[in-house]
Amino acid sequence: MMPGGSYEAYKNIEDILLKVAAQVPDSGPCVTYIGKGGSGNFVKMVHNGIEYGDMQLIAEAYDVLKSVGKLSNEELKDVFTEWNKGELLSFLVEITADIFGIKDDKGEGHLVDKVLDKTGMKGTGKWTVQQAADLSIAAPTIAASLDSRFLSGLKEERVIAAKVFNAGGVEDSLSNQVVDKKKLIDDVRQALYASKICSYAQGMNLIRAKSEEKGWDLKLGELARIWKGGCIIRAIFLDRIKKAYDRDANLANLLIDPEFSKEMIERQSAWRRVVCLAVSSGISTPGMSSSLAYFDSYRRDRLPANLVQAQRDYFGAHTYERVDIPGSYHTEWFKLAKHSKI
Amino acid sequence: MMPGGSYEAYKNIEDILLKVAAQVPDSGPCVTYIGKGGSGNFVKMVHNGIEYGDMQLIAEAYDVLKSVGKLSNEELKDVFTEWNKGELLSFLVEITADIFGIKDDKGEGHLVDKVLDKTGMKGTGKWTVQQAADLSIAAPTIAASLDSRFLSGLKEERVIAAKVFNAGGVEDSLSNQVVDKKKLIDDVRQALYASKICSYAQGMNLIRAKSEEKGWDLKLGELARIWKGGCIIRAIFLDRIKKAYDRDANLANLLIDPEFSKEMIERQSAWRRVVCLAVSSGISTPGMSSSLAYFDSYRRDRLPANLVQAQRDYFGAHTYERVDIPGSYHTEWFKLAKHSKI
Repeated sequence: MMPGGSYEAYKNIEDILLKVAAQVPDSGPCVTYIGKGGSGNFVKMVHNGIEYGDMQLIAEAYDVLKSVGKLSNEELKDVFTEWNKGELLSFLVEITADIFGIKDDKGEGHLVDKVLDKTGMKGTGKWTVQQAADLSIAAPTIAASLDSRFLSGLKEERVIAAKVFNAGGVEDSLSNQVVDKKKLIDDVRQALYASKICSYAQGMNLIRAKSEEKGWDLKLGELARIWKGGCIIRAIFLDRIKKAYDRDANLANLLIDPEFSKEMIERQSAWRRVVCLAVSSGISTPGMSSSLAYFDSYRRDRLPANLVQAQRDYFGAHTYERVDIPGSYHTEWFKLAKHSKI
Repeated sequence: MMPGGSYEAYKNIEDILLKVAAQVPDSGPCVTYIGKGGSGNFVKMVHNGIEYGDMQLIAEAYDVLKSVGKLSNEELKDVFTEWNKGELLSFLVEITADIFGIKDDKGEGHLVDKVLDKTGMKGTGKWTVQQAADLSIAAPTIAASLDSRFLSGLKEERVIAAKVFNAGGVEDSLSNQVVDKKKLIDDVRQALYASKICSYAQGMNLIRAKSEEKGWDLKLGELARIWKGGCIIRAIFLDRIKKAYDRDANLANLLIDPEFSKEMIERQSAWRRVVCLAVSSGISTPGMSSSLAYFDSYRRDRLPANLVQAQRDYFGAHTYERVDIPGSYHTEWFKLAKHSKI
């Protein structure tokens, strides 16, 4: 469970991890025997997929605060430093606060503003998304993070598209909004946290699905425990995940754990406000939106999937089940519709 | 290019396709030589991925109109019948209108309400999503459609989650909203159309990426032309796609075609209203939201990907580019941050 990169980078990480480790309750060594076969590699892959999600969600929080809230880099540094004292305490939030404090050594201003908005990748996020599809596990937050990296790479196309749409009269609503900064910061913090829970729920369910398929018998709570130390997604939040699986090792989804469901309920209004604000401002928050859609789909006892299945039965005789009577049914929709038109 | 299913279903499809075909300008036979190697199969696979997207987007339109707008099945039938006379004219919209008209032969009411909200699938949507990831093409609308099918399958979990969250105090805001039905219907129509454009843009770019990788030299406009007849996504809309590639065979993205960009600009306010309404109502519109995030990411000259790349350089020395000076850079973020704290 090691970050990629140079030896020097490893040394830096070691320093910062030791420092963050001192702030959270001890949970034993951050290594363990994962399981048989390729389970260790699979878990590390999903860890990286979750890491993509965390980074994307933080980037969206930054985007909303900067583009809509007009926060300066100094203010952003303060916000992330403050967030790192609470439920969001984590390696990635800590280094984000650091980043906003670094001045450009080649010109005026802050270095973060000089960094090109193109994100590289090494393949583990892609594999996570492909595995999720193979295992029939919805992982939309991780997928949105991967897609955001792909779109970030199309810098030249985006510059052209920005001209097409600005010249075409897409209103720049960002400049006209009056925003309560304090309220926005608080809302974005809650949106980030709630979105994270959904992303981890996806990752955990992906690991479980593979474990069941392969007979690995992986312990999800134990994975959350070792991730608390020594890795990029290292965060105090993982202790809550460990406890959720301690309460119920067979928990179908983190979202319905009593503690997490309570947290979701408390944060959902703020979360919806942030996503709506982003949508109406023309800012994309693909990760936060995907997490919210995941939450709203998962907690819905009746989805419009009945229509999709009716369509499939209409054009392909794929059959459907009924809500009231067991069995598999097929209807001659076309004939009935034609008949009723005569 | 044939729908799956029984012979009887094929016969029905044949009838309806002939009927719809009579309504749109003739574009020649709906078959052609696609290209060498496995290109025909690949194109058919992406066709199916796009079909997943179309069906999901229609289901979301239905959901918003039914759950927020409180439209009855009779009203829904009228709406889809009306939509099928305009820019949305297509096989899937036509059969959707038909579906809302079918009465249940085993009880009271309409059959669509008795169909279980679980959607089956046969693998082509999954392959499309996996291929998109392999080719570094963002296809979030198609991915959201696949995830929605996965989540639809978790019916028993969803019933439990619905109880957890309703008991936990998630406000049922749906019952309290006063909605202007006529305005809502018009907004949803525009949101559906704009979302579709994004989905087709993703599918077309996926085909091009594979074609380039394999040296297939596929003609995207020609594919849009043959899809106009004889297949599930058959729609008048495809004529516009064909014309876009006639105007510019190397078009980077359908969104920046002069005709489509104009249409997006005209529809985006309605589209944002629908997504916001869904978000604040607790309804998930994963397809429409993903399309909107795709649009807003693509038309943005500066994304927050600079922060993600700065994070990657911080913890993994992955380097970054600058906006102002060519080259590849690495910064000792941690050392500088530590130094500034002393």
